[in-house]
Amino acid sequence: MTNDAPSIILIAPQMGENIGAAARAMANFGLMDLKIVRPRNGWPSERAEANAVGALDVINPVEVLETTAEALEGFHTVYATTARPRDMRKNVMTPHSAIQDMRHKHASNQKTAILFGGERAGLSNEDIALAHNIISVPVNPEFSSLNLAQSVLLIAYEWLQSADNTATEHLPTGGSAPVTHEELHGFIDRLEDELDTKNFFRNEDMRPSVMRNIRNIFSRINMSEQEVKTFHGIISALIGNKGKN
Amino acid sequence: MTNDAPSIILIAPQMGENIGAAARAMANFGLMDLKIVRPRNGWPSERAEANAVGALDVINPVEVLETTAEALEGFHTVYATTARPRDMRKNVMTPHSAIQDMRHKHASNQKTAILFGGERAGLSNEDIALAHNIISVPVNPEFSSLNLAQSVLLIAYEWLQSADNTATEHLPTGGSAPVTHEELHGFIDRLEDELDTKNFFRNEDMRPSVMRNIRNIFSRINMSEQEVKTFHGIISALIGNKGKN
Repeated sequence: MTNDAPSIILIAPQMGENIGAAARAMANFGLMDLKIVRPRNGWPSERAEANAVGALDVINPVEVLETTAEALEGFHTVYATTARPRDMRKNVMTPHSAIQDMRHKHASNQKTAILFGGERAGLSNEDIALAHNIISVPVNPEFSSLNLAQSVLLIAYEWLQSADNTATEHLPTGGSAPVTHEELHGFIDRLEDELDTKNFFRNEDMRPSVMRNIRNIFSRINMSEQEVKTFHGIISALIGNKGKN
Repeated sequence: MTNDAPSIILIAPQMGENIGAAARAMANFGLMDLKIVRPRNGWPSERAEANAVGALDVINPVEVLETTAEALEGFHTVYATTARPRDMRKNVMTPHSAIQDMRHKHASNQKTAILFGGERAGLSNEDIALAHNIISVPVNPEFSSLNLAQSVLLIAYEWLQSADNTATEHLPTGGSAPVTHEELHGFIDRLEDELDTKNFFRNEDMRPSVMRNIRNIFSRINMSEQEVKTFHGIISALIGNKGKN
């Protein structure tokens, strides 16, 4: 067990398929510690293996325990996931907010755990009473039932998201150098010349604004050197000049 | 089709199970428009019905089409989901950023669509070339394979998240009134009196800081009237006064 990521604890899960899918979701997003309390169909499980598609070899060895209390030994802060509101005064957090809270706890060296109930009824009120906070995923109120593994997936996704520094947007270079200013506008100057030759600008007054629009289009599409060469080729072909490129 | 949410388009999905699970994830998070291009095992699908657990009755009637081009008719901005980088110069967005972009597009009355490829190989490069942007989910690079329905789930989750105004944290009242200042501190005053009677404060110098700590604990737990009554009862029981509550 590491101190720097929450452990996932499944209480009385019924189907091996869902345990496997939960393990897969954990591995996808970097959660490595899975404990299972009283799995209905025993452990290990062939169906879990099949649905984990290798994830059980990626995460830490799964611990199987008899009681929630045993599973929670050594943890400082516990979060219980519930779909429906319970008649219990306890802090309810969104997944996003709960993960922020966990990161904060880990920074002061606390160990955190997230409880998930079985497929049919979720966590018992007794288990929820052991938790410090409740996590509830905001869903469409008209269709709110989330599968166990899907719930684990969303929490795990928020976990990786919270530390991820992937650019929110980027344009891959694809190995081709971006075009320089002079190469791009040299191409556009050539385009203007060729259009001139073909009497494209029937009204000289309009030429500046037409060319500004054309420059704008080609500027915003972030072309590579190779792409500009392709456009040179297109023009050469259109004017019937097979040799020139 | 509505203008104010993206459509989900599955290209050549193989398993009805995954189509059903995708529909379920859509309904969970308020995406209502699903199109399928060339489903391998045909449509309708019993396995899709079973895995949708009712979602196919909640979302709009599913449209089945022969080509990606037909499916994209009428759309203005198209997003292609891919797991691995392709050798293509095209803007790559996180799910979060892509959803922000869609909201922006919908505000100017554009229709948006998100393409998902089949289970085995994902989208073809030909289909990706039709899209304006790529969406890529940041995952653990050592275990990166996301199931089709899980990918749909994460996009759908981000969709609802982006408009959700659930409080990031709240404490449900559970129908019981929160306690007033004077009720809470009246209780703590009583606790101090009872502790005094039992000679709890052996060192009078320490009393202020001990009581400040006790007040702090009871202040931060946001008790209800009923919970304060419970504590009054606990004290009465501990001092052996069965009548007083």
